[in-house]
Amino acid sequence: MGDGWELLTRIKGPRDLDRLGKEQLDLLAAEIRTFLVDAVSKTGGHLGPNLGVVELTIALHRVFDSPKDKVLFDTGHQSYVHKLLTGRQDFSRLRAKGGLSGYPSRAESEHDVIENSHASTVLGWADGLAKANQVLGKDDHVVAVIGDGALTGGMAWEALNNIADAKDRPLVIVVNDNERSYAPTIGGLANHLATLRTTDGYERFLARGKDILERTPVVGRPLYETLHGAKKGLKDFIAPQGMFEDLGLKYVGPIDGHDIEAMESALTRAKRFGGPVIVHCLTEKGRGYQHAEQDEADRFHGIGPIHPDTGLPVKTAAASWTSVFGDEMVKLGREREDVVAITAAMLQPVGLKKFAETFPERVFDVGIAEQHAATSAAGLATGGLHPVFAVYATFLNRAFDQVLMDVALHKCGVTFVLDRAGVTGDDGASHNGMWDMSILQVVPTLRMAAPRDAEQLRAQLREAVEVDDAPTVVRYSKGVVGPAVPAVGRIGGMDVLREPGTGTHGPSGTGDTPRPDVLLVSVGALAPMCLEIAGLLDKQGISTTVVDPRWVKPVDEALPALAAKHRVVVTVEDNGRVGGVGSAVAQALRDAGVDLPLRDFGIPPRFLDHASRKEVMAEIGLTAPDIARQVTGLVATLDGRLDDEPSRTAEPARD
Amino acid sequence: MGDGWELLTRIKGPRDLDRLGKEQLDLLAAEIRTFLVDAVSKTGGHLGPNLGVVELTIALHRVFDSPKDKVLFDTGHQSYVHKLLTGRQDFSRLRAKGGLSGYPSRAESEHDVIENSHASTVLGWADGLAKANQVLGKDDHVVAVIGDGALTGGMAWEALNNIADAKDRPLVIVVNDNERSYAPTIGGLANHLATLRTTDGYERFLARGKDILERTPVVGRPLYETLHGAKKGLKDFIAPQGMFEDLGLKYVGPIDGHDIEAMESALTRAKRFGGPVIVHCLTEKGRGYQHAEQDEADRFHGIGPIHPDTGLPVKTAAASWTSVFGDEMVKLGREREDVVAITAAMLQPVGLKKFAETFPERVFDVGIAEQHAATSAAGLATGGLHPVFAVYATFLNRAFDQVLMDVALHKCGVTFVLDRAGVTGDDGASHNGMWDMSILQVVPTLRMAAPRDAEQLRAQLREAVEVDDAPTVVRYSKGVVGPAVPAVGRIGGMDVLREPGTGTHGPSGTGDTPRPDVLLVSVGALAPMCLEIAGLLDKQGISTTVVDPRWVKPVDEALPALAAKHRVVVTVEDNGRVGGVGSAVAQALRDAGVDLPLRDFGIPPRFLDHASRKEVMAEIGLTAPDIARQVTGLVATLDGRLDDEPSRTAEPARD
Repeated sequence: MGDGWELLTRIKGPRDLDRLGKEQLDLLAAEIRTFLVDAVSKTGGHLGPNLGVVELTIALHRVFDSPKDKVLFDTGHQSYVHKLLTGRQDFSRLRAKGGLSGYPSRAESEHDVIENSHASTVLGWADGLAKANQVLGKDDHVVAVIGDGALTGGMAWEALNNIADAKDRPLVIVVNDNERSYAPTIGGLANHLATLRTTDGYERFLARGKDILERTPVVGRPLYETLHGAKKGLKDFIAPQGMFEDLGLKYVGPIDGHDIEAMESALTRAKRFGGPVIVHCLTEKGRGYQHAEQDEADRFHGIGPIHPDTGLPVKTAAASWTSVFGDEMVKLGREREDVVAITAAMLQPVGLKKFAETFPERVFDVGIAEQHAATSAAGLATGGLHPVFAVYATFLNRAFDQVLMDVALHKCGVTFVLDRAGVTGDDGASHNGMWDMSILQVVPTLRMAAPRDAEQLRAQLREAVEVDDAPTVVRYSKGVVGPAVPAVGRIGGMDVLREPGTGTHGPSGTGDTPRPDVLLVSVGALAPMCLEIAGLLDKQGISTTVVDPRWVKPVDEALPALAAKHRVVVTVEDNGRVGGVGSAVAQALRDAGVDLPLRDFGIPPRFLDHASRKEVMAEIGLTAPDIARQVTGLVATLDGRLDDEPSRTAEPARD
Repeated sequence: MGDGWELLTRIKGPRDLDRLGKEQLDLLAAEIRTFLVDAVSKTGGHLGPNLGVVELTIALHRVFDSPKDKVLFDTGHQSYVHKLLTGRQDFSRLRAKGGLSGYPSRAESEHDVIENSHASTVLGWADGLAKANQVLGKDDHVVAVIGDGALTGGMAWEALNNIADAKDRPLVIVVNDNERSYAPTIGGLANHLATLRTTDGYERFLARGKDILERTPVVGRPLYETLHGAKKGLKDFIAPQGMFEDLGLKYVGPIDGHDIEAMESALTRAKRFGGPVIVHCLTEKGRGYQHAEQDEADRFHGIGPIHPDTGLPVKTAAASWTSVFGDEMVKLGREREDVVAITAAMLQPVGLKKFAETFPERVFDVGIAEQHAATSAAGLATGGLHPVFAVYATFLNRAFDQVLMDVALHKCGVTFVLDRAGVTGDDGASHNGMWDMSILQVVPTLRMAAPRDAEQLRAQLREAVEVDDAPTVVRYSKGVVGPAVPAVGRIGGMDVLREPGTGTHGPSGTGDTPRPDVLLVSVGALAPMCLEIAGLLDKQGISTTVVDPRWVKPVDEALPALAAKHRVVVTVEDNGRVGGVGSAVAQALRDAGVDLPLRDFGIPPRFLDHASRKEVMAEIGLTAPDIARQVTGLVATLDGRLDDEPSRTAEPARD
């Protein structure tokens, strides 16, 4: 810890907050802000959201007694302050291998409960925990922090519906509302009303008011109506309030989320209430960091390393998969008026900003609502358009049923563009896009492309939007797109990236193979790695054909016959091994009666700890030397030279 | 058509309704009711829901011009009346092969749009269709019919949020509210208010009222407040109304859904409104059929054949998988206080009624909200309980992300019990539970059981709830549980159901096999079929070992070594072939370096038309003779006797 954080360094756990007075708390908040800007500008991470919840988190930990009480954060990227207050102040390796996770992590602290980065889950967790408390007769508290954005997710609605159902089950929902349009000045009146609202006195008062009204309509009405009128005026300003009340949830707010005292007061009242209650607090994303406060594009939500004084990135980004997609979408939009775009609250991150600027009437931001994105896409397609839904690969899991039952079953031409597919690394287990090429395999008629370079991405996106009677998927990695990988031939729909014996060394070694040894099926961005593998095998005298099937689903019809010309088939994919492209290829070979040995390399079926992509790939053995070594072992076994060494993949699919 | 349906038989399409007067319409409704009771009592089907929407559907087709206007039904089991009014009046083979589907079907009629039986999708479809109309400049109408139950699904919320966002995009949402607690007598006042509500006049009036209020608060207030007071009184009675209004949706209702004139009037106004509007109508499930009206258990929602006069089933049901599960849950509940149950609005169909009666505090009905069921289960488990979520297999697709990210990633002991797994047949494509054993393969740590008989179901359910750090799945078929299939041995965790050569004929034929020919891996309820296959192979001189792995995920560690003692491995499962148990077994063998020929039999990757389960199984080649024939061909090929006949499975995985 550097200087300037004298108070912060003395906080070893939440209970150390208890002995601080008002001034010290404000000082602590200021220290935390400078700490966050200092630390996150070095490592990168979620800066804006955490600057917004400094006071809120301090208040939470003063009012509730974690870990006995459960303090839950939705999505979890706003948990840095929580980490600082629960004994985790070494941010030097934030999101790096061995360092702190960018999300809550149960391995790090007993104060962390949910480590899942997928949005809108916290109310479901809270409902379950509160139910468990009730069944087990515990009086521990459950408090869930959720952003206003995450409330647009269907799960949040399902949970609210359940939470509201049990009036006697205590549960505090903190809505962290960081819409900048809210004026914090409303806090005074709101706090006053809030004080009334959740006290028994106000309830009795209201009930009494109703009684009077019914018995003496003329006299009683004005008082009663004045109160309701006041509420109504508020309601018109804060839209969700009425909705929560209609569901049967008590509501406190809006509270100035940067006023520790006000937050403590509201949370204390909510805690004592004895039933489900919503605390609506207004916060400012990026609060206290001038560059973030002034940035309307929300660039400081999640950042790479920046210069803290200017807020500018340390390095300029090279062309990314996302930008290649974004540019091509604009071209497509110009050529085809029926192409429309959908995003689930991530217009900028998925590259649709330019499209939205060019065709504002043809882009639909549906909120954090992947299910709706998919089903409304089916409607758009049925209505005569061709929707392109761009989404992070891991988040499409939310819409599996809708892709299957709404889009595929109904033969709708919808294109799903999956960004951040494969190992992404530093955001941890739930951000890796390692499920899509497995679960989407089961969707009948769906076609899936894994472009290997920018040119292929452009070409395959165009091929995808040509399909008007089935879902298509185009998936690619996070970050910088690699150099072009040219094809040297074409077999069926597959690009041949390397003929056997065209390597630098040519076939050698045993020299007695009448057919090439290995057919190496390369998936997507792993093409350079696969060519490297082929080069390494070449040096071992193992001749290798490398093909990129381009469309990985369905398996190319020419593949079995091509495979039959080799001694062994190897597949390499940046996706879970279980049920992935390798399994699909194996099944296609079985169905064709081509019973060759096959080895499928991919991501093992376990949750991967955060680290850089390169570190993760090395750890799971998804590197050229690792794979080349294993394929060499397999070929040697087939040659009968090394019968005593069993050929195994690095990590079996068993979990 | 029999006698008594003179009017109905004259309706060839919706426009034939135009020339009918009020009396004739009421007569038509009566005819439709007797027709439905008569027809559905013979075939089985969804009786109650359709009796409830007779007048509603007539009104819809009089006000809207299908198929130019899109009339959409959520879930679709309430589309029988719609079928009758759109040229489909032969119900003699309802839900049977070649007969009418029990859901809308685009193959049947241009009047059908959504044929998906999964709930809560219709608003997403409607939003997409309305957006397409807007982009394309069409003035066609979109009207979506959704039940009050389906509004609890998260997708519906996501859609409402989007629909409300565009004030100028016409879309009519009909909420078909069949909560029996609603008194139809409210219709008068409601209709009156409704008349006001969506006319321009009322909007101007309200705006003017506000103006007056603001300028002259004392004088203007009473009139304005009286209106609001009237609305408020209504709102207290009809909970969702305020919520819809808060979202920014216009609201008409509640309307008596059995009053054709009132419905027409409301729909006409909604149609003319020019923006998104909700028409809230109250209907009675089972209306007009005494046995259904008087049945509080909602037994007439979906029925098998019944005696129309008594409402009693034609045959008494034998013990079902569901009832075996339900009984065992009660026992488990007595033994373990931490076992709790979850259902997504299907307490009775999934067999949890007895558990709920015995342990009312330990059962949670979350509504049609599978996502919330899974995530709140993670919370319950984290809170110290062991939840068992019983759900139809096909509906778990909704919660894939939550099973993966909330339950598995967080190491929660949650048991998922999947009823109606495999081919269910007569409810069509979206009811077959053919996806679960594929997509769940990718969930790390998840363990999955496919019990083969009642005893195994009881035993494996108990094994499942013993696991406290990972998700477990127990999946079984629809309907009657078959006879017990005893094990003759145990290898690893696998039951041996048949040793090679223990068949009636013993090894014969070539007689020169030093090891058994076939290892047949039988999954779940297909055990009797697999034993039959072994018997058939036996007659061909092919010796076969049959094992039931019991737990199909992970693949039993003893399986590769056992497989290596055979010449070929065959897997048979009542699940999609792609990425299923067969693929997992194949991968486990590859990982162990056991490169044997393998053939995996299961459901091909396509959507299956409705028919009986037996007919579907025959059509897709999932029968003992079909499989035995193909395995015989494969073994013959290996013997070199029939090299010219390629060995292929019945239907390749390619789609």
